[in-house]
Amino acid sequence: MTIGRFISLEGGEGAGKSTQLRALARILRERGLDVVETREPGGSDGAEAIRTLLLTGGADRWSPRAEALLFAAARADHVEKTIRPALARGAWVLSDRFLDSSRAYQGQGELSDSDILALHRIGSADFLPDRTLLLTLPDTVAAERARARDGDHADRIGDRDSSFHQAVADAFARFASLESDRVRAVDASGSADAVTERLIHALADLLP
Amino acid sequence: MTIGRFISLEGGEGAGKSTQLRALARILRERGLDVVETREPGGSDGAEAIRTLLLTGGADRWSPRAEALLFAAARADHVEKTIRPALARGAWVLSDRFLDSSRAYQGQGELSDSDILALHRIGSADFLPDRTLLLTLPDTVAAERARARDGDHADRIGDRDSSFHQAVADAFARFASLESDRVRAVDASGSADAVTERLIHALADLLP
Repeated sequence: MTIGRFISLEGGEGAGKSTQLRALARILRERGLDVVETREPGGSDGAEAIRTLLLTGGADRWSPRAEALLFAAARADHVEKTIRPALARGAWVLSDRFLDSSRAYQGQGELSDSDILALHRIGSADFLPDRTLLLTLPDTVAAERARARDGDHADRIGDRDSSFHQAVADAFARFASLESDRVRAVDASGSADAVTERLIHALADLLP
Repeated sequence: MTIGRFISLEGGEGAGKSTQLRALARILRERGLDVVETREPGGSDGAEAIRTLLLTGGADRWSPRAEALLFAAARADHVEKTIRPALARGAWVLSDRFLDSSRAYQGQGELSDSDILALHRIGSADFLPDRTLLLTLPDTVAAERARARDGDHADRIGDRDSSFHQAVADAFARFASLESDRVRAVDASGSADAVTERLIHALADLLP
């Protein structure tokens, strides 16, 4: 049996995570791997129900504290019901966002990174990806791509100002620098095919 | 302005919390106090939406970890949107269950009391009741009362076996013994009026 691997794709809005996740899944399947494509918040029945609570309603529907707890609850369900069972049967699990998104987004305000990590310890027993692919883009390019996709209306999380998105990008860069074995920053500019090639390269040591 | 006070009522199923909460509210209003009656999980729009997720579905819908995070998220919303604003205007807030229920119910299994308290610190900045009234009954009486009320079908939480409910009662008793200034055990046997009188007595030092 193949060894199951858990790979998360991270990055700001407009970095191309969804497109690249599909491309990666196709290539890994061509290599004979069992691939599960998933996303956060969501990825299991319970987590998708929590996703609906998180992404609908006004910007002040949830306080940052309640929001962080809901993301952690959704992640606990996602890990237990979807990710761990897939890994146990030897699948490769590709997730559009995981813990680092909570650290980068919910860890901006009144909650510290250690608070977010405590929630992950309690909710998911510190479960981490084998590799996190961080798609990086100059801010102006990312904003342009996100606008082209979402128009003027994103959801509760996407719909925030540029200084917030800069702080998110800085947080992601910090994780890549401090946890360089797990988190690999990958240049997401240029053609989709070129980016996919870079991502496969960043997974090379894990591939069978 | 009156000083706002936050009072939680705790105890196992069938201890008479809901009945006593209504009786207490009536008496406090007769004394001229602004009284808010609330409950957990729930008590605010967001928390009621989370309550629906928590109390519906099969017994295995949520793992203990996801469940604890959802309770903490609901509590964070309840504290911020309902309890704190009411206290700020000088109201007395009476809640049917609060943190101690999470400690007694979710703190039974793979999560420790310190995990539950960590979730409360992150979610609600360690916010505690001014007084917690713990309604105590011999197990056999409580089980009888709960059955008379719910018939054979309780919800996901009520519908558990007697050793579980014994462990819950033991946990509540421990809180009353270790935090005797905040938590007061009150005998819930006898007539409803007699119990209400005991509860008012246990609040005497806080009343204006």
